[in-house]
Amino acid sequence: MAKFNLHPERFFDSNPEVRNLAGKIYRTTQDMPIISPHGHVDPWLFADNQPFPDPAELFLIPDHYLYRMLYSQGIRLQALGIPTRDGAAVETDRRKIWQTFAEHYYLFAGTPSRVWLNHEFAVVFGIEETLTADSAQRIYDHILEKLQTPDYLPRALFDRFNIEVLTTTDGAADTLEPHRLIRQSGWRGRVIPCFRPDAVINIHAGAWRGEIERLEKACGFGIDSFQHYIQALEQRRLFFRENGAVSTDQGIFSPYTHELSAREAEALFQKALQGTATEADAAAFTAHMVMEMARMSIEDGLVMQLHPGALRNHNQAVFDQFGADKGCDIPVMTEYTHNLRELLNKYGNDPRLTLVLFTLDESVYARELAPLAGHYPAVRLGASWWFHDSMEGMRRYRRMVTETAGFYNTVGFTDDTRAFPSIPARHDLSRRMDAEFLADLTARHIIDLDEAIALGRELAYGLAKKNYKL
Amino acid sequence: MAKFNLHPERFFDSNPEVRNLAGKIYRTTQDMPIISPHGHVDPWLFADNQPFPDPAELFLIPDHYLYRMLYSQGIRLQALGIPTRDGAAVETDRRKIWQTFAEHYYLFAGTPSRVWLNHEFAVVFGIEETLTADSAQRIYDHILEKLQTPDYLPRALFDRFNIEVLTTTDGAADTLEPHRLIRQSGWRGRVIPCFRPDAVINIHAGAWRGEIERLEKACGFGIDSFQHYIQALEQRRLFFRENGAVSTDQGIFSPYTHELSAREAEALFQKALQGTATEADAAAFTAHMVMEMARMSIEDGLVMQLHPGALRNHNQAVFDQFGADKGCDIPVMTEYTHNLRELLNKYGNDPRLTLVLFTLDESVYARELAPLAGHYPAVRLGASWWFHDSMEGMRRYRRMVTETAGFYNTVGFTDDTRAFPSIPARHDLSRRMDAEFLADLTARHIIDLDEAIALGRELAYGLAKKNYKL
Amino acid sequence: MAKFNLHPERFFDSNPEVRNLAGKIYRTTQDMPIISPHGHVDPWLFADNQPFPDPAELFLIPDHYLYRMLYSQGIRLQALGIPTRDGAAVETDRRKIWQTFAEHYYLFAGTPSRVWLNHEFAVVFGIEETLTADSAQRIYDHILEKLQTPDYLPRALFDRFNIEVLTTTDGAADTLEPHRLIRQSGWRGRVIPCFRPDAVINIHAGAWRGEIERLEKACGFGIDSFQHYIQALEQRRLFFRENGAVSTDQGIFSPYTHELSAREAEALFQKALQGTATEADAAAFTAHMVMEMARMSIEDGLVMQLHPGALRNHNQAVFDQFGADKGCDIPVMTEYTHNLRELLNKYGNDPRLTLVLFTLDESVYARELAPLAGHYPAVRLGASWWFHDSMEGMRRYRRMVTETAGFYNTVGFTDDTRAFPSIPARHDLSRRMDAEFLADLTARHIIDLDEAIALGRELAYGLAKKNYKL
Repeated sequence: MAKFNLHPERFFDSNPEVRNLAGKIYRTTQDMPIISPHGHVDPWLFADNQPFPDPAELFLIPDHYLYRMLYSQGIRLQALGIPTRDGAAVETDRRKIWQTFAEHYYLFAGTPSRVWLNHEFAVVFGIEETLTADSAQRIYDHILEKLQTPDYLPRALFDRFNIEVLTTTDGAADTLEPHRLIRQSGWRGRVIPCFRPDAVINIHAGAWRGEIERLEKACGFGIDSFQHYIQALEQRRLFFRENGAVSTDQGIFSPYTHELSAREAEALFQKALQGTATEADAAAFTAHMVMEMARMSIEDGLVMQLHPGALRNHNQAVFDQFGADKGCDIPVMTEYTHNLRELLNKYGNDPRLTLVLFTLDESVYARELAPLAGHYPAVRLGASWWFHDSMEGMRRYRRMVTETAGFYNTVGFTDDTRAFPSIPARHDLSRRMDAEFLADLTARHIIDLDEAIALGRELAYGLAKKNYKL
Repeated sequence: MAKFNLHPERFFDSNPEVRNLAGKIYRTTQDMPIISPHGHVDPWLFADNQPFPDPAELFLIPDHYLYRMLYSQGIRLQALGIPTRDGAAVETDRRKIWQTFAEHYYLFAGTPSRVWLNHEFAVVFGIEETLTADSAQRIYDHILEKLQTPDYLPRALFDRFNIEVLTTTDGAADTLEPHRLIRQSGWRGRVIPCFRPDAVINIHAGAWRGEIERLEKACGFGIDSFQHYIQALEQRRLFFRENGAVSTDQGIFSPYTHELSAREAEALFQKALQGTATEADAAAFTAHMVMEMARMSIEDGLVMQLHPGALRNHNQAVFDQFGADKGCDIPVMTEYTHNLRELLNKYGNDPRLTLVLFTLDESVYARELAPLAGHYPAVRLGASWWFHDSMEGMRRYRRMVTETAGFYNTVGFTDDTRAFPSIPARHDLSRRMDAEFLADLTARHIIDLDEAIALGRELAYGLAKKNYKL
Repeated sequence: MAKFNLHPERFFDSNPEVRNLAGKIYRTTQDMPIISPHGHVDPWLFADNQPFPDPAELFLIPDHYLYRMLYSQGIRLQALGIPTRDGAAVETDRRKIWQTFAEHYYLFAGTPSRVWLNHEFAVVFGIEETLTADSAQRIYDHILEKLQTPDYLPRALFDRFNIEVLTTTDGAADTLEPHRLIRQSGWRGRVIPCFRPDAVINIHAGAWRGEIERLEKACGFGIDSFQHYIQALEQRRLFFRENGAVSTDQGIFSPYTHELSAREAEALFQKALQGTATEADAAAFTAHMVMEMARMSIEDGLVMQLHPGALRNHNQAVFDQFGADKGCDIPVMTEYTHNLRELLNKYGNDPRLTLVLFTLDESVYARELAPLAGHYPAVRLGASWWFHDSMEGMRRYRRMVTETAGFYNTVGFTDDTRAFPSIPARHDLSRRMDAEFLADLTARHIIDLDEAIALGRELAYGLAKKNYKL
C-alpha cells in the first residue's frame, strides 16, 4: 500500500536554509484562523447542516477543476455524473464514477488539485493510502462512513477548519435566507454574503429580464427606469450589509470603465427592457455600472472586487449540454492601465474606497497592477486567482508584485472555491508558499526573521481582516 | 589547453538535493531512443548517405541560430559563406570562415547554441579542447578527418544517435523521393515525412501560382476550382500517409480560424488564380484552411500541428540578399483563446483529432494554452519552441503549463532543428531539464521518486510516441 | 536598538554553491568604477557643490519611488512636503516629514527602495540602527550633521562613489551651463549631458510652442519650417557633443516608427506652429522624428536610446496639484516587432548606429527584444528599467534575454535615478544580481568560473564603456 506523502515541510524549496526558515515562519501561521473573504460555497450547506451524500458528490461532481482534466483526456462528462441541462441520462452509479476518477488520478500529478485532494484525504478524512484503481472502493467506503458521523457535518467541519469568516457569493435579488437561518440557528459560524450583481447588469444576456423581475420582487417596487434600477441596487446593497456583507464582486469580461450621461444610461436601460440591447450596449452599460458600483461603495463602505478576464463557456457544445461553470472558461489578455483610468481618476484617491483587483493575465502583475496598487490609495491586489491559485502561481505573484506594490497593498489569500472541504488545504498551501517567499528574502538578508514572521502573519490573516473590514 | 567542461550533472540546479534527484531521474532516460516528431533535417542526407563536406558546412552555414548572433555583432553574412540569392560572391575559404566563427565563439556564452555545440564537439566528435582562435584549425582538422570515416556518414550517425523516428518537413507537392529511396535501401532507419502545405495555402505569396502548378503535376489533374484544390490536398495527404507520415504542420502568422461558405472559399480561390488576392484575402483563406486541415485530420488520422507567431523576414535587406530563414524572423504577441474558438467548437471535442499547439509567445502558456489543453480532448501542447528551446525556456514552460494542463496534455520534446548533429544534444538538454523539474517536485514532496521516474520516461519518450501515433 | 543587516553576501541565493561562487565573482566587480550612462541627477549639484539641506530634501522629496508608496497607503503628498503647482501650502517642518516617513518605513519591506535606502544609511552615512518611529530624529540629526561636512558635498560624494562618468538628461534647448561650469572648475568629475528632445518633439503638448522659442534662442535663428527645425536639432546635437555628450534619449509612449514624406512632415510642423496639431498628428510626428533621430545618430555618432511604454500622469488630480513625475506613471503593453520594423529596415544594419532599447513590458524580453538584439547589428538592450530595476526584475531580465541575445548585446547597468546618493546602492545591487546569475550558470557547469568573472566585469563596467563609446 503506497502511503500518502504529506511531509511536514512539503512544498518548501529544498535548499536547507530556505526550508528551515520557511518552516519557522509557517509554524507561526499554520494554526491561525481562516478568513475566506471570497468564494462560492453554497450557504445552504450550513443552513441545512445535512450530511454530504457520498464521495463523488462531495469531491468530484461540483468541482470543474477536476472533471475538466478528465474530460481533456477523453472521459465524457456523462461518465462522471455531471448533470445535463435537458435531463438526459448520465451515470448515476457513484461507485463507478469514483472508480473512473481513481483510475485517472495520475493525470493530476504536479497540479494543485492533487495537492488539495491529498490534503483532504489525509488530513480531513484520515486516509492513509493513495487513491488508485485498487484502493478506490476502500477509500470510498472510508469516506462514506465518515460522512455519516456528526464530525463530518458541514458546521462541524467549519468549526474544525477554524474558519473565522466564510463569504459566499449571492445574486442581487437573493433573499439571503440561508444566511438568516444560520444566524438564527444559534450556531456561531460566521457565514456572510457578498453582493454580486452580474446577472442584473449584463443586459445582453437572455436571462436579464427575468433577473430584473426577481429584483423587483426583492425590492418591492417596479423597475422601469435607470433611476429605479439604481435605487433597487442601492436598496439591495443595504439589505446585504444588514445581513453581514462587507463586500461586492463583479465578474466582468473587461475592466473597462466609462461613465455615461444620465440620458445615455437611461437609453441603454430602455433598450434592455425592450430586449434589443446589443453586445456593445452591454459592454457600455457594464463600464458605466462599474463606475456606479464604485460610487456606491464609497457611500456604503462595501469593499469592491473585480474579477475580469475569462471568456466564459468557450466550448459551446459543453455549455449547451451541461451549462455554465464546467471547466471551459478560458482567460484572455486583460488591460488595466487604460481601462481603469476613468474610475481611478474619479474615485481612486478617495480613502473610503477599497477596490480589490484580480487577474487571470499574469503579464499585468508587474506591468500594470503593481504600479496601480503602489500609487492609488483605493487600489489593493487580490491573491493569485483560479488557474494561478497554485504553488507556481503564488510564487510568480509575490515575485512580480512585491517589489513595486509592497506587501501592504495586497489583501491576503482568497480561496474562491466551490469545494468546501478544500478550504484548509488551499489556505495551507498559500501559507506555505508565503512562508517560502519570506524565507527566501530572509536567507538573502533582505529582511530579518522577526520581520518575516510578522509579515507571514499579516499575509495569512491580518491583511484580509483589515482590508475586508472584518 | 582549456578542456571542455561536460560535467555529468551539468545544467541541474546545484542545490544538492535537487541535483542528486535529477541525476537519478535523468539516468533512467538518458539512453532511451530519440523520437524526433518534428524538424527540418534534409531527408536526402539519408537517401544519399554521403560524407558531410567540412566543419563550416556541417555546423555553421545551415544554422541561422549561429550566424544571426555573429551578424548581430557586426560580422557580415558574406564573411560566413552564406550564399546570396543573386550568386554574388561570398567567402569560400572554409578554414577562414571557421576561424571567424571560432574567434567569436565567446559571444555564445549562456546560450543554448553553445550548449549544443559543446555537446556535438565533445560527444559526437571526441574533441577535448574548447573552440578558440587558437584551437580553431586543429579542431577543423580533427572534424574533417572524422567526416571522411564511415562512422560519420549520416546513416551511421543516425544509428549511433539511437534515433527511433526522425520526421522531416515536406511541401504538399513534394515527391517524397528521398523517403522512398531510404525505405528501398535496406537501411532500417525510420525517416518519415510531415505534410506542410504552407506554400499552396498562402495565396498572397508570389510563388503561390507556381506551387499550385507543382501540385497539379503531383496529383495528375488540373486545379481550377476550390473543390479540386481540396481534392488535391486530400490526395496528397493520403500519399504522405502511404509514405509513412503521421502528421501535418502549418507555419502561420496568426492562429485565427474561421470557416468560409463554399461560395466565399471559391471566390477567394479564383482571385488567387487570377493573381489578385490581397493580404486580407490570404488571412481569410488561411483561417478557412486551418479549419479544413482539422476536418481532414479527423478523416485521415494525421496529427495536426500549428506553429504560429513569427513575423518572417523582418529584415528586408537580409531577405533580399540571402533569402528566407536567415535568423531575422521575429516573434509577435499571439492570441489563441478567441482565434481558435471556432475550430475548437467544431472539432475540439472530437477524440479523433490531435491538435498540437506551439507558441513563441510565452505569456500565453499559463493564460491561454494550458487552460485550452486542460479542457479540450483534442488539444495537446507542443514543447517550448525555437527561441524558447533552451534551459530557461524549458523551465518556464513546465512551470507555467503543468499546474493547469498536467503532464499528459503535453507531447514530449520536439527539436525542430535543421542541424542534424545537434539532435542528441537537444534531446539531452530536454531530458536534463525535465529531470530537474521533476526532481524539484520530488524534493518538495509533491510527487515521489518512483512517480518522477515514470513521468521522466513519459516526457522523454512515451508521450511523443503515443501522441504522434508512432 | 535593531542593527542594520547589511550582510556581505546579501541578495545572493542562499544555496551554498551559488552563494560562494557569486561572492567570488562579485568581489572582482564591487570596486570597479561606476559608469552611469543614463539618469536624471541635476547637474547643478556638481556645478554649485553646495551642502544638501536636510534628510527629507535629500532622500524623500525628490524621489517619487518613495512617496508613491506612502501615498498608496493614504498619506497625503502635502504631509510629505511635496510642492504644489499653485503654491498651496504643504508641510514645511522637515523633521515632521521625516517622522512620517520613518513611521511608514515598514511599507517598503521587500522593495528595492528599502534595499537602496538601507545601503545609503549604512554605507554612505554610517548609520547603525534601522529607521523606525523611535530612531527617526536621531537619524535625522546624524545625517544633518554629516551633510554639513566637506565629505558630504556633492563632488566629494561623487569621488567617494568612484563614479567614472555620470550622464545627466537635458532638454534640446538647454544651455548646458552647469556642465560648462563643472569643466571650468578644475574638478575632474566627468558629468556629461544627454540630448533629450521630447519637449520639442511632442507637438500636441501645450508647452511645445514655448519650447520651440527656447530652441530658437539657443540656436540663434528662427524656426518656421520643418527644415529649420531639423537644422536646429542637428546644431543642438553638435553642441551637446562638444559639451561631452555621447548619447540621446527619447521617452515616448509607443516605439512606433514611420517616415513621412517631406511634404507631410512640413504640413504637421505647420499645424503644430498654428497650435492645431491633434494627438494623432503628434503620434505621426514622433514616429517620423524617431526615424530622424536614428539618421542623425548615424551621422554624428551619438548613441540612441528609447524609453517607451509609460502612460504618464495617469492620476489627473495628482498631476493638476503636483505636476509631472509624481509616481503616477503606469506602464502599458508595448509592441516592438512591428513598430520598429521600418526604422530597423532603414538603419538597423548600419554599424554606425547603436540603438539601446528599454522596456517596461517584461513580456517582450524573450519574445521581441532578445530576438531583435540577437539579429540586428545596431540593436542593444538596455538594463531592466524603473519598476524592474530590482532584484527580481534583474533576474527576470537576464533569464529571459541571455539565451537569445547573449551577454554582448546588452549594455550593462543603467541606474536612471534622480536620487544621487542611491547610485552606489543601485550599481551594487546590479553587480550582485549579475554575479548571482553568473554563479548559477557556473554551478550548473554551463560556463566556468574564469569566464564568469570576465563576464561579470563586462556587465559591471566594460559593456557600458564600450557601447556608450566612453
